[in-house]
Amino acid sequence: MMTSRVPPISVLRMGRFVGALAAVLATLGPASADEGVWTFDSPPSKVLQAKYGFKPSAEWLDSLRLSSVRTGGGSGSFVSANGLVLTNHHIAMDCLQSLSSEADDLVKNGFHARTRTEERTCPGMEMWRLGSTEDVTERVRAAVQSTDSAKANAERNVAIAALENDCKEKTGLRCEVVTLYRGAAYHLYRYKVWNDIRLVFAPEARLGFFGGDPDNFVFPRFDLDFSLMRVYEQGGAIKSPNFVKWAKTPLKDGDLVFAAGHPGSTDRLLTVAQITFDRDVRYPLMLQTANANRRVLQEYSARSPEAARRGADDLFGTENWLKATIGESKALRDPDLLAAKADEEARLRKSFVATADHPDPWIVIETATAKRTVDVKRRWVVGYGWTLFGSAGRIVELANESTLSEADRLPEYRASKVPRIVHRLTADEPIYKDLEIAKLAGEWQEAIDILGKDDPFVVRVLGNKTPLAAATELIEGSHLDQVAERKKLVDGGKAAVAASTDPLIVLARDVYPMRRPLAKRYEVEVETPTLQAGDELEKIRFRLFGKDAYPDATYSLRLSFGKVNGYDADGLLMPFQTNFAGLYARSFAFGGKPPFDLPVRWLEKQRDVDLATPLNFVSTLDIIGGNSGSPVVDRNGELVGLIFDGNLEGLGARYAYTDRKARAIAVDGRAIIEALNKVYGASALAAELTGR
Amino acid sequence: MMTSRVPPISVLRMGRFVGALAAVLATLGPASADEGVWTFDSPPSKVLQAKYGFKPSAEWLDSLRLSSVRTGGGSGSFVSANGLVLTNHHIAMDCLQSLSSEADDLVKNGFHARTRTEERTCPGMEMWRLGSTEDVTERVRAAVQSTDSAKANAERNVAIAALENDCKEKTGLRCEVVTLYRGAAYHLYRYKVWNDIRLVFAPEARLGFFGGDPDNFVFPRFDLDFSLMRVYEQGGAIKSPNFVKWAKTPLKDGDLVFAAGHPGSTDRLLTVAQITFDRDVRYPLMLQTANANRRVLQEYSARSPEAARRGADDLFGTENWLKATIGESKALRDPDLLAAKADEEARLRKSFVATADHPDPWIVIETATAKRTVDVKRRWVVGYGWTLFGSAGRIVELANESTLSEADRLPEYRASKVPRIVHRLTADEPIYKDLEIAKLAGEWQEAIDILGKDDPFVVRVLGNKTPLAAATELIEGSHLDQVAERKKLVDGGKAAVAASTDPLIVLARDVYPMRRPLAKRYEVEVETPTLQAGDELEKIRFRLFGKDAYPDATYSLRLSFGKVNGYDADGLLMPFQTNFAGLYARSFAFGGKPPFDLPVRWLEKQRDVDLATPLNFVSTLDIIGGNSGSPVVDRNGELVGLIFDGNLEGLGARYAYTDRKARAIAVDGRAIIEALNKVYGASALAAELTGR
Repeated sequence: MMTSRVPPISVLRMGRFVGALAAVLATLGPASADEGVWTFDSPPSKVLQAKYGFKPSAEWLDSLRLSSVRTGGGSGSFVSANGLVLTNHHIAMDCLQSLSSEADDLVKNGFHARTRTEERTCPGMEMWRLGSTEDVTERVRAAVQSTDSAKANAERNVAIAALENDCKEKTGLRCEVVTLYRGAAYHLYRYKVWNDIRLVFAPEARLGFFGGDPDNFVFPRFDLDFSLMRVYEQGGAIKSPNFVKWAKTPLKDGDLVFAAGHPGSTDRLLTVAQITFDRDVRYPLMLQTANANRRVLQEYSARSPEAARRGADDLFGTENWLKATIGESKALRDPDLLAAKADEEARLRKSFVATADHPDPWIVIETATAKRTVDVKRRWVVGYGWTLFGSAGRIVELANESTLSEADRLPEYRASKVPRIVHRLTADEPIYKDLEIAKLAGEWQEAIDILGKDDPFVVRVLGNKTPLAAATELIEGSHLDQVAERKKLVDGGKAAVAASTDPLIVLARDVYPMRRPLAKRYEVEVETPTLQAGDELEKIRFRLFGKDAYPDATYSLRLSFGKVNGYDADGLLMPFQTNFAGLYARSFAFGGKPPFDLPVRWLEKQRDVDLATPLNFVSTLDIIGGNSGSPVVDRNGELVGLIFDGNLEGLGARYAYTDRKARAIAVDGRAIIEALNKVYGASALAAELTGR
Repeated sequence: MMTSRVPPISVLRMGRFVGALAAVLATLGPASADEGVWTFDSPPSKVLQAKYGFKPSAEWLDSLRLSSVRTGGGSGSFVSANGLVLTNHHIAMDCLQSLSSEADDLVKNGFHARTRTEERTCPGMEMWRLGSTEDVTERVRAAVQSTDSAKANAERNVAIAALENDCKEKTGLRCEVVTLYRGAAYHLYRYKVWNDIRLVFAPEARLGFFGGDPDNFVFPRFDLDFSLMRVYEQGGAIKSPNFVKWAKTPLKDGDLVFAAGHPGSTDRLLTVAQITFDRDVRYPLMLQTANANRRVLQEYSARSPEAARRGADDLFGTENWLKATIGESKALRDPDLLAAKADEEARLRKSFVATADHPDPWIVIETATAKRTVDVKRRWVVGYGWTLFGSAGRIVELANESTLSEADRLPEYRASKVPRIVHRLTADEPIYKDLEIAKLAGEWQEAIDILGKDDPFVVRVLGNKTPLAAATELIEGSHLDQVAERKKLVDGGKAAVAASTDPLIVLARDVYPMRRPLAKRYEVEVETPTLQAGDELEKIRFRLFGKDAYPDATYSLRLSFGKVNGYDADGLLMPFQTNFAGLYARSFAFGGKPPFDLPVRWLEKQRDVDLATPLNFVSTLDIIGGNSGSPVVDRNGELVGLIFDGNLEGLGARYAYTDRKARAIAVDGRAIIEALNKVYGASALAAELTGR
């Protein structure tokens, strides 16, 4: 799956360095690869014209941009004039899990609102739609006067916050300054944000995620990974004049397609020093934690069917993260990748002469990366994690950081970021204390394993207790599982937090002064010099390659292009698409055992379903985590499907794009219509989608 | 496909060295792998008992052996008491091609004899059934007195021929002395041979070989690769009291299964010197020729639909050979394989001290292998090839060699081998001169490419003509396409051959003295010392590993065992079986385009077919080319399917057995019954098979 999942222990901040590897790689590989996550204001018109004889018009681009939304770590699109949004089933998983109970399991059984009144609000969910952008590079640059790294950083933070706050006051929109090309450009993005999002339709999780973890990131694939939401405002469905129309022309092998979405992060411009750090330090840590988390969740889920239900979303996310991490780690260990990067770097370095004003950026980055290594394990562990203690940590940090100037705050607490944090903290989602205890005990066992039992952080969180005993006492004693309690603390600010006796808040207050210096030192000693050196690198590249390049992914809206295309998987010829016959075939082949079982209604309706209906298809679209739910459109701008995953062979995409075997995987729109009509008795919805 | 295809240019004689790598590897790998191609008189009872708690009884073994047949480079089994034999579709391809014409294409349309009188004789086809074996090691050894290599070789040949001829005279059976364990053992095999074999049923080639070359050696797979023949004697179907009964218990994941068949050759006991020779010399030559042959046949087949029909069997065989050779070549270049072999060899060498009587066998083999390299290209090229010129060559060789003593003959013309050669030469198969010309011109272009235009062989066969002109003149001028003409020459012996003015015979007479010394020198300088050194190696191994070892494959009847078992193909979880839903799924996925098209009746009957019916399954059975058509039976000795292929990951099996991803692929018996009943209207045949 292509969901973007941040590592559960959030203290490791991964600088997202951006740039123009497209052009760099173009000098190494085929000249006209379907590469790039392009901003809508700078689309890849040249290569599209040259390779496909296609030039998207301004209307074509505007319409697709205004139909696209960002939501829940993923993407989606308006698909009717009445606020209906198409996204993935796995993007709706949080919502489905929140609305479920032991008696009424929407994850397992799916959901279908037959009327508007049956549509159910998803707690904490938001949809962001990018309305406009503005280049503010000069204003940010002008504000940075200091040569001292820490001071320059503060000046930049202040300038960015001012731009964001000013925009918000003037427009009422949510405004974010997006750093592009490693800081060679800063753009102000203005989003319309909706937060009354209602669930309209979701298939059973078995269909949304058929094949489960074994088939995740795998092709051939047979997933109906879609859901339908509706955007509400003031109690009614919004009007959405910009929406993607359902395609009338059947998709064919070789067709040109586009995806609009919010790719999370790529690292295509890392230097050899940074890639080596990732390979040798960062990925081993991530693998260790992902494996430990999976073990904890598997043990928890094995307790009972109800425990399995409660833990399902976390287990999915963890297994997804683990599998992606294994794949990326494997790509990093490919000697060809490192050799190509080293070769490219050597060529760039020839064109650079360092001076006093312009120190060698590769050396700057290498030095910063060495500093990054020093306390990497403490930065990885010392923090609040992904349980209720994480909520406590965010409450404490928010209360404290809000009192600081924009210059001094930790970047994730800039004023523009606060509404989203508050919305998440005050969402009314069910919290299961048994699950929280299991996860927290697991985290602290990890802390012992990585830092040892004598580390001050470990000593403080555990006292002289076992991880399980400490976690149990804290979670059982806390009231943060009540939304009212969290809201009271968020609204009460620093005073309320200081006065709280909730054991999780008390502990978070003590951890805050341990974590903050680590984060700040990272920002000043690693991130800022790396950004500045990156700026220098960007200038070198710009001199060499010009403007035909795209910025690394940053969760902002991007356009990808590619062609529908099968491939040769080491001797097994992969067709460009699968179909419902293949779904049944794979289920039968495993004797209908989980995760290859099919719900009874799917077995009963087998003869009603047209088995030749295309189900999933692959293309050379350049995607990464965050693209989940991206609409895939044809030349006419009409919807042919939606992205939900990439294949294993494509997991190196974080570092380099390839199109030999790497493929994006999408649900075919025709499968959605066939399923709604023939299996789910949801013809009205099918009609709303197709306009027929 | 697991057909055994010898390289079309037959002058390269690959010594088939036999031995006991099972035991050697057992000391390196897991102790209880499902490894081995075991003789029926020495079954793997210990490991079967230890691993599966199963001990085959003497009756169980006798019944399976007496139900098994060898035919057309492959295997088969009696499946009814009325002489009905089950084998692969691709084993029947020669027959189908022979019985086809432009107007009536049995390859394309399949064949179904609704009554006995409609069953059609397959030209040149034989079935061999192993009746009994006898250990004659002491009698062969006693006959070899000389220490001189050439003389010892002659003595052995005489002794073997005497045993064979004596047996034939006494029993009327076809008798062959089989060299086992590199000459550590010689067994006399007595076969009942039938040569009136009639075609009963074959599906369309598209079903027999669904997915064509792209899916060859691939799993998941969807092939109905079976055919039914009936054995006749004196104009009537024979009674076959020993036959394999159709299984009543459905096959399950993990089930123990057995295959009885005729694996062609494995090279699991080669020394490092020999493996290096294969990797660096032999496989590059094979790849060059296989690629050239494929090119020639593809160009020929593109001329017209009728040309495509005429060339189909040759093209299939060539593509199959090429794909297998690529896979084996890849396995040879795996550094792990060579490292493991080197390690094993080093350990064995420690236990050996050379003396005057017992020279170091590794050095002997290395020396012989060096001699093998000297004229390897001439041995590869100088000969008669696989066209009508090949028939001419065999006629000339047979006429000349038959006049020599058994000691002096080329081994393939020992008296015991002659009936089979005569049967093939006098089979009434259609010969298409346009196809013969294309193939022969291709061969001679290859001869120029490999030996250069000044080589005496090239000069003689071409004169001063182009390959195409020379081939055209020869084939057009020859009458050897007439079976009567071939029969006249075979019956007429040396005098008739000497008197012939047929241009192909004239040319073959001139090539004979070029080829024979090359073959003889190979026998004396390479094969014989290698066999003698192998004998020494075998003794060393025997001291170390005892009798729990199987001999390398030699086209003689063997028993393999293993379990039905899926596997992880680099992230894609392979089920242990496929089904009819998967057949339709793969056809739909490629838009029904060849080689993924389905015959109309298969599309029309889709709703009649139970899509969950198992179609193909994989197991850890140890198989190799020649096992095609082998019955797969369960613990009860009942038929669950038949072998037709191995997967790409298993192509290293020539050199070493592995069970991580290497799998044998079989047609499931239930698919045969479902297809006969639901698609082909052949319920009577289904009833004959199931006895119901």
